[in-house]
Amino acid sequence: MRLVVLGATGSIGRQTLEVAKALGIRVVGISVHTRVDAALKIAREFGIEVVAVTGLECVKPTALENVKLVTGERTVEQLVKLTAPDTVVVAVPGIAGLDAVLQAYPYVRRLCLANKESVVVGGRYLKRLLRDAGVEVLPVDSEHSAVLQLLEAARPVKVILTASGGALRDLSLEELENATVSQVLAHPNWQMGAKVTVDSATMVNKGLELFEAMWFFNLAPHQVDAAICRDSFVHAAVVFEDGVVKFHAGFPDMRVPIAYALTKPDRRWKGRVPELVGRSITFEPVPFDRYPAFALAKEILRERDTLKVGYCVADEVAVDAFLKGKIRFGEIYRMIEKVVESVEAADLDSWEEIEEALEATQRISKDVMRRWK
Amino acid sequence: MRLVVLGATGSIGRQTLEVAKALGIRVVGISVHTRVDAALKIAREFGIEVVAVTGLECVKPTALENVKLVTGERTVEQLVKLTAPDTVVVAVPGIAGLDAVLQAYPYVRRLCLANKESVVVGGRYLKRLLRDAGVEVLPVDSEHSAVLQLLEAARPVKVILTASGGALRDLSLEELENATVSQVLAHPNWQMGAKVTVDSATMVNKGLELFEAMWFFNLAPHQVDAAICRDSFVHAAVVFEDGVVKFHAGFPDMRVPIAYALTKPDRRWKGRVPELVGRSITFEPVPFDRYPAFALAKEILRERDTLKVGYCVADEVAVDAFLKGKIRFGEIYRMIEKVVESVEAADLDSWEEIEEALEATQRISKDVMRRWK
Repeated sequence: MRLVVLGATGSIGRQTLEVAKALGIRVVGISVHTRVDAALKIAREFGIEVVAVTGLECVKPTALENVKLVTGERTVEQLVKLTAPDTVVVAVPGIAGLDAVLQAYPYVRRLCLANKESVVVGGRYLKRLLRDAGVEVLPVDSEHSAVLQLLEAARPVKVILTASGGALRDLSLEELENATVSQVLAHPNWQMGAKVTVDSATMVNKGLELFEAMWFFNLAPHQVDAAICRDSFVHAAVVFEDGVVKFHAGFPDMRVPIAYALTKPDRRWKGRVPELVGRSITFEPVPFDRYPAFALAKEILRERDTLKVGYCVADEVAVDAFLKGKIRFGEIYRMIEKVVESVEAADLDSWEEIEEALEATQRISKDVMRRWK
Repeated sequence: MRLVVLGATGSIGRQTLEVAKALGIRVVGISVHTRVDAALKIAREFGIEVVAVTGLECVKPTALENVKLVTGERTVEQLVKLTAPDTVVVAVPGIAGLDAVLQAYPYVRRLCLANKESVVVGGRYLKRLLRDAGVEVLPVDSEHSAVLQLLEAARPVKVILTASGGALRDLSLEELENATVSQVLAHPNWQMGAKVTVDSATMVNKGLELFEAMWFFNLAPHQVDAAICRDSFVHAAVVFEDGVVKFHAGFPDMRVPIAYALTKPDRRWKGRVPELVGRSITFEPVPFDRYPAFALAKEILRERDTLKVGYCVADEVAVDAFLKGKIRFGEIYRMIEKVVESVEAADLDSWEEIEEALEATQRISKDVMRRWK
């Protein structure tokens, strides 16, 4: 890529040069207003071919060195004509940015706009010119870049699912051990079936969801995790390698994801839009001592398929026993752990292998249950 | 769309039926485990053709009415064969969901999966089957739907830019009036040039950014707004009509949006990834009494182009005067207001019109300045 930076000695200009250097992008030209010395220093450092000085009529020839200096009329146009860049960053401050854009745009493919005033003053006219010329214009402003990034498809390096913590999140560890069925079924945010509500209290549900996230989005174990968001306002976050995090939020209402699955890529459901102002969003870690079944799931993420089957089957057997009053809440986890420890590790490539693993883990689970007390 | 809902009497199943009704999606078949009465009630309400009962060997013929009831072996396969749906929602709970998926997938184009266990138990095998059959599989789980939505491109109905509130956000209104240049230039989150730092304190900057957001993303005035996020951790939010909100967050570092503008659609910058856990995000309203220049910008959003030019030009003149000690901080806004009130309203379609508007507003601004005291 051949890059020209207009307004190279300002804050955005300097940071653009730093980014270009870090990414190995070739800077072929810069413009400055009057700071010729700073411009020549940059030109030497970056091996820049042409420097446009927009605010001076002429520059002493002794300052030239190996760099071509452009002054006089329409210096930005001269600069881009001489350097033929693919991309121009317009970091010229103020209304002067409009003139810089108008001189540069016919010669480039991508215009990165850090100047707001050009758009505010000349927006209607500029939009037509850029469209007719087929120039791609991208915002550099952090907020507008953020919006653009939120509109674009993207591949993250990490996915974080949120968890409410379930109905028992505020019980002491002792109370947790003996939590009753009715305590467990009073989920704070979601109305769901009994099995999944118990799974929510043990966070087996979140453990299963980590597997599910790996499966749906082709992620490795270290790329999935969970955090507690008590009001379930944030449902997930995705993290990118440049440090950007995107959150997905909204009232907890299953009709929204159901409608999205049915109508994607359209979004035909009309939902209540939450008010952001006055809102506070908090993330807490998942305490492993309260949710040992979640900690176990995180370990199993890295293990072979049969252990995941064991986790799943043992949980069904244990939750059923808990709902029938046969075991205590705290015993759900210990039963799952016991079963998982007894499973022979193997991957499952065919239906026969899956069926065999299901039968084996069901047998083990029943065995564990029979000998429990 | 022809829809089949497997597990229609559970929580997800019932909500799927509700969504289908609201969106005018035709439900052609359902499956239930044993709740035949509930199934027939649903079948009547939705005009459903076929009901599969997966957990009973046979059903009394008197219960049949106009609905075809399927029992016995591979009931789900029978159901989808008879109804030929485009989309199947698998809302069967537990490990039994895997069997439902395996029976249904060969006959559909889109599989909406609300069942986690099928993936955890049969994931490796299932992935191959679905890929080979060319079946699209989408998550219904709220967290995974959230992740999917974060990865997909989308068009919002509203954009909210965040603002730090600038350097003076904690001064009293009286102190604000007489804030000094050095107070104004001490921005809490961003290192920027003097003009934009003053614009940040007056929130003229955020006003300009509302115009900019409208321009970049083709939005109407009512589709753009701002909220205060004091640590600038969240940069923007986009709101969808189904009530979903996506946030873009990260450390305030201009190199990230610069790199994105240079390398989009790639993301080549390596940035510091923030820790979510322990973090709290708060949004506050923009107080119009503290930021009257922002309130003015919101009004001008709806007005013709020359008023935006007046806003821009007057601000440049006023900020210059403030930085040179000629006017008080509080006077920046009042000067802008005065100029904007004096501008003749018109839209600007050509460079000549823009130039004329610039000259006119510069003349007005200098006039206002000259007669200021």
